Amino acid sequence: MDPRLDQLVRKTLDGDRRSLARLFTRIERNDHDLRNVMRQVHPHTGNTYCVGVTGPPGAGKSTLVDALVTVARNKGLKVGVLAVDPTSPFSGGAVLGDRIRMQNHYLDRDVFIRSLATRGVHGGLSHVSSAAVRLLDAVGKDLVIVETVGVGQTELDIMGIADTVVVTMVPEAGDAVQAMKAGLMEIADIYVVNKADRDGARQLATAIRGMLSLNPPSESNWQPPILLTQAHKGEGVAELYNALGEHHTIQQDEDTLDDRRRQRRRQEFTQAVTETLTATLTKLMNSDSPLSDILNRVESGDLDPYTAAMQSIRDGNLATNLGQAIPANSDDSD
Amino acid sequence: MDPRLDQLVRKTLDGDRRSLARLFTRIERNDHDLRNVMRQVHPHTGNTYCVGVTGPPGAGKSTLVDALVTVARNKGLKVGVLAVDPTSPFSGGAVLGDRIRMQNHYLDRDVFIRSLATRGVHGGLSHVSSAAVRLLDAVGKDLVIVETVGVGQTELDIMGIADTVVVTMVPEAGDAVQAMKAGLMEIADIYVVNKADRDGARQLATAIRGMLSLNPPSESNWQPPILLTQAHKGEGVAELYNALGEHHTIQQDEDTLDDRRRQRRRQEFTQAVTETLTATLTKLMNSDSPLSDILNRVESGDLDPYTAAMQSIRDGNLATNLGQAIPANSDDSD
Repeated sequence: MDPRLDQLVRKTLDGDRRSLARLFTRIERNDHDLRNVMRQVHPHTGNTYCVGVTGPPGAGKSTLVDALVTVARNKGLKVGVLAVDPTSPFSGGAVLGDRIRMQNHYLDRDVFIRSLATRGVHGGLSHVSSAAVRLLDAVGKDLVIVETVGVGQTELDIMGIADTVVVTMVPEAGDAVQAMKAGLMEIADIYVVNKADRDGARQLATAIRGMLSLNPPSESNWQPPILLTQAHKGEGVAELYNALGEHHTIQQDEDTLDDRRRQRRRQEFTQAVTETLTATLTKLMNSDSPLSDILNRVESGDLDPYTAAMQSIRDGNLATNLGQAIPANSDDSD
Repeated sequence: MDPRLDQLVRKTLDGDRRSLARLFTRIERNDHDLRNVMRQVHPHTGNTYCVGVTGPPGAGKSTLVDALVTVARNKGLKVGVLAVDPTSPFSGGAVLGDRIRMQNHYLDRDVFIRSLATRGVHGGLSHVSSAAVRLLDAVGKDLVIVETVGVGQTELDIMGIADTVVVTMVPEAGDAVQAMKAGLMEIADIYVVNKADRDGARQLATAIRGMLSLNPPSESNWQPPILLTQAHKGEGVAELYNALGEHHTIQQDEDTLDDRRRQRRRQEFTQAVTETLTATLTKLMNSDSPLSDILNRVESGDLDPYTAAMQSIRDGNLATNLGQAIPANSDDSD
């Protein structure tokens, strides 16, 4: 046990915002801390509704989220916002952080805004995002909005943590096609055509409706609505908020919300196992391990990486080494 | 051994294009096939120069690649093009495939063009991309160009397989900032400002130069050039081709090309191990395994996923189970 971490968790659960911010830094940086924190906050979770907002760069997602926070705050909800930046694998930090985002809500103590960045080349961003939502859940946020650019597998994975996914587009040539290519059409529960005062907004809405009509008929009563907004003026945002509520209700009626959450927990489990095994592998590779001989042969081009991987898993008992390389008390160590 | 696969490999190495296309389908769909093929083609690899072209959606990457292929063909090079689409985790296929791409080169037998799509939710796209480059290497392509949209961790990972990375942007507000956010600035060896006839092209070039001047001084003599192109007219593309050659030469002079390739092979090895372990875990989870009890508790929310992951790795000997779940002859099975 790390008494300082435990104290941070306790103060965070008591509502201390600075401790919460510091906990975020801990779970972003260190997998042991992440697991420790998750174990401690887990009993306090289960009450947050999580909304994902995604779409291509330039779709006005931040402005839309900002406007949505305003509506939710007017209804008295406590809100958390996670901005997930597909950011540099080198700098390890978001270039445009939360500091220049959503300045309208900075003084509001019931809004917590945070940017999440990757931790090194191996990503783990969706792993940290899941944990971050759970942390905001534990501190009593009623609504957590996760915003990310939707043009990559990682971002699609991140949307897996949302109860409702909002896909945002703007009326510009090719946007709908790009979104379709990116796999956004399959994950959307609600479509938003933002900057709806621009030319082509209604055509885009019609095009989306056309694509939706190609889908096989759904078992659900939920038909993804296509909403027009001008987020910078707040227009259409109350309608979006209502649509979120309707989607929530229909999922409860149809018992799909629970399915979705079960699936998400399963995914979190797989991610946690994979992350742990990968991190352990990297550690083994960097230390003077039985792997170094095989690695030398791979690096020189002597042995192809795929055969080497299978060989080292089987003959070198890599899997067993991985299991042993994880310290027995790793949950509790700092 | 799978005699049909072996025959496909043999015919492919003999130059049969249809067999090559069918091999691609096999390695996209099946990890066993991928490993088998890689093991067989490995002795024939090592002669390709791999160029990555990335940048935000709408930057004209396909047009630029098309023009680059024309220049390379005029020099007599055999060329492969891989278009990596961040695509749907559901449909499993690229919506806009190679069939409507780069029609100029379809009748040219020395150009091979292929779109790669993800294989299910767990991605593995950069894994398949590495293998695809090696396959084109083995069939004697002198130059392989990998094109992908550069707005996500997966796409950054994919650029890790290139010897030279070209980052393409267009003069539109915010593009440079988005590229910076996406981590493209750190991986670029060459910058291209495409659609250079548009307003703002020179300002964008100046802005990139400004950002580059903030970097710490490099040990290399290579200074990433910023080239202006109008790919649809072919303007500036010969200069880009020459810059690729200069980068190749300087990397050979400075011995960095070999470093880069050693690092890539190491990364391929890690990926292959991680993919195999993850695939095996998923298989274990879906079968009636000792995992099902712990999984039930995770899904119901009884046990937090992170603690469960650690528990099952340690107490349940998950790592050992993973090792045992991989059949001893998996390299050879179909």
